[in-house]
Amino acid sequence: MAAAPNPAVIGSRDLRSGVTTPALILDLLAFDRNITEMARRAREADRGLRPHAKGPKCPEVARRQIAAGASGIACATLFEAETMAAAGIPNLLLTSPVIGEARLTRLIAVDALCDGGIIAVIDHAEGIEQLAAAATRAGRRIGVLIDVDVGQRRTGVNDPTTAVKLARAIARQRSLQFRGVQGYYGHLQGLQNFTERQTACQAAMADLARVIDALRNAGLPPQIVTGGGTGSCAIDLDANTFTEIQPGSYPFMDTAYANVDVAGDGSTAFDVALFVETEVVSTNVAGQVTVNAGMKAIPTDGGPVCVASGSPKDSVFRHAGDEFGIISWPDAKAHGLRAGDRMRIVTGHCDTTCNLYAALHVMKEDDLVDVWPITARGRW
Amino acid sequence: MAAAPNPAVIGSRDLRSGVTTPALILDLLAFDRNITEMARRAREADRGLRPHAKGPKCPEVARRQIAAGASGIACATLFEAETMAAAGIPNLLLTSPVIGEARLTRLIAVDALCDGGIIAVIDHAEGIEQLAAAATRAGRRIGVLIDVDVGQRRTGVNDPTTAVKLARAIARQRSLQFRGVQGYYGHLQGLQNFTERQTACQAAMADLARVIDALRNAGLPPQIVTGGGTGSCAIDLDANTFTEIQPGSYPFMDTAYANVDVAGDGSTAFDVALFVETEVVSTNVAGQVTVNAGMKAIPTDGGPVCVASGSPKDSVFRHAGDEFGIISWPDAKAHGLRAGDRMRIVTGHCDTTCNLYAALHVMKEDDLVDVWPITARGRW
Repeated sequence: MAAAPNPAVIGSRDLRSGVTTPALILDLLAFDRNITEMARRAREADRGLRPHAKGPKCPEVARRQIAAGASGIACATLFEAETMAAAGIPNLLLTSPVIGEARLTRLIAVDALCDGGIIAVIDHAEGIEQLAAAATRAGRRIGVLIDVDVGQRRTGVNDPTTAVKLARAIARQRSLQFRGVQGYYGHLQGLQNFTERQTACQAAMADLARVIDALRNAGLPPQIVTGGGTGSCAIDLDANTFTEIQPGSYPFMDTAYANVDVAGDGSTAFDVALFVETEVVSTNVAGQVTVNAGMKAIPTDGGPVCVASGSPKDSVFRHAGDEFGIISWPDAKAHGLRAGDRMRIVTGHCDTTCNLYAALHVMKEDDLVDVWPITARGRW
Repeated sequence: MAAAPNPAVIGSRDLRSGVTTPALILDLLAFDRNITEMARRAREADRGLRPHAKGPKCPEVARRQIAAGASGIACATLFEAETMAAAGIPNLLLTSPVIGEARLTRLIAVDALCDGGIIAVIDHAEGIEQLAAAATRAGRRIGVLIDVDVGQRRTGVNDPTTAVKLARAIARQRSLQFRGVQGYYGHLQGLQNFTERQTACQAAMADLARVIDALRNAGLPPQIVTGGGTGSCAIDLDANTFTEIQPGSYPFMDTAYANVDVAGDGSTAFDVALFVETEVVSTNVAGQVTVNAGMKAIPTDGGPVCVASGSPKDSVFRHAGDEFGIISWPDAKAHGLRAGDRMRIVTGHCDTTCNLYAALHVMKEDDLVDVWPITARGRW
């Protein structure tokens, strides 16, 4: 039985008949521009770039980011790290604190498999003891960062004193290597105004700098200072706090970023490269059509869902249940749209969008040139 | 590498060490009660029961619903139908209008594979012509329902005259068999007050009855009248409009249904059987812990997310990004919770929850007894 995604359609010039909708579409030229642009920015600022894989969850995306100049890949889950390591992606960082014997065993297996190994983050003394014991049992030495809370109140240590205490505890363990700190301000990435975002990020970086100073004074200077996202990349690279950045959204972008002045010149710096292609399934109500993309194809979080092409002027998308969406427009007159007609949607949040699909359909202009499995979703 | 879900843990009495979180947990006893209860209600009302697979997307759930007395299974997508047919599930109904050569070819392949075949719905003359041509080419005869819009303004025909016209067009095609009508009022399922919901459903059923009368008068009496959901099941089975019902949520339930008087006696009629098990990953902020379930593990739509067990009194969950959630409580004092401690969450919407996971971890009281793959997600 035919089931999308269907590798047989690769190379087809007729996307319409070949790819079942709803389908996740990657505009390869925009994607290439985006990964080249971020790599250029990092290189010119002489910083490392460790793109975050939590959004794409796709080894082929990571491979191309590395080829474009990234120094490694950040992962949010162990399953992402396992997927990346198995695909030969080097220099991994697990950005979430890891605890528990089963997870630590998996972490150490990734470290053994991955070229350059995997660095873990911790934010609690118990995490250090568990990781050290697991690494000792396996006869390995694991690099560790201290996760610092720079205002998100989610994970991380809250003060320099605790950070120094933890760094000393790491340094005492022969099976661990203290590598530095992570400070991620995810809550600031979406602030639209550049100056407002810059002020908030600089305050957070000042918090992180106090931790770094305390560690230096304790004789434990961080080699790695990692953090930052797509929204803050220009600010992060302009300041001197981070040795590397870990942005995630920039290859794809979404409407949550549509009005974020990422570059500081009024532009988003990166182009939208990710679309949901959907198809009209019903046309019986004036001024609207029903399409086959609902809450399981287009996430409900993030920015407003935007109809990029294929429908009348000023069209608006709304979710109409799990399986359907409704696209409507102000002029209720006959629209000429028929069942089977296709639209492209820009979603509100690229991370939760990729998480809904088994694969990216890669388009170079009008040609479907590849299908990249989204391998690391649905498991942890 | 170990990757959840891990079949090796089946039979383990120690869920904590065996199953990676976040994990989707099915309470098997509650699930069994739910599927038995709905089957009893349908049997006592002498109606067919064709549970909807769009939520579970899981052949094993469908198999057990059939074993409990269901007469067939409803699907929202062709990929669900293909998955069910391949698993030997009989008597399928595709509840979404289907159009386009590639899809129709797949539909007809499902019809050939499936014991009892698959019934399609249409809401437009063009759909009839396409389906008839595809069935003729394949030398098959496909059963067809007319989808009737009973107030949701999403799919379906809007008036008896159009319905009769379409039924005649179906009857003229030798490769099609006119089987009846579908009228689904999804927008009424969540109305909490029984009387209010009953009044609205009865009005919608009256619309559907006008279509049925017109078809009878035209000499095309519907054999099948299908519709209804979990919220309206008591009302649907009490009235005489439907020959079968197609509820989807009742095996699992969720917080969107928590305050819906499904039974008309003040109760939900069905028990919550679906949980997300999550784990504490950070404890550095007073009055809260951070857990490893964010927007990719707990959907953002539907009812409020509810902490069912494992945390202090009056705990509240909020999403804290893609990968994290924060559980907080009014009393900010020391809570005794440590990293690795586990909580169970009831989500706002069972359909979008299942869609995020590769498998259901099936628990009989405290024992993990099985892992059921959620096969039909992420493809269409």
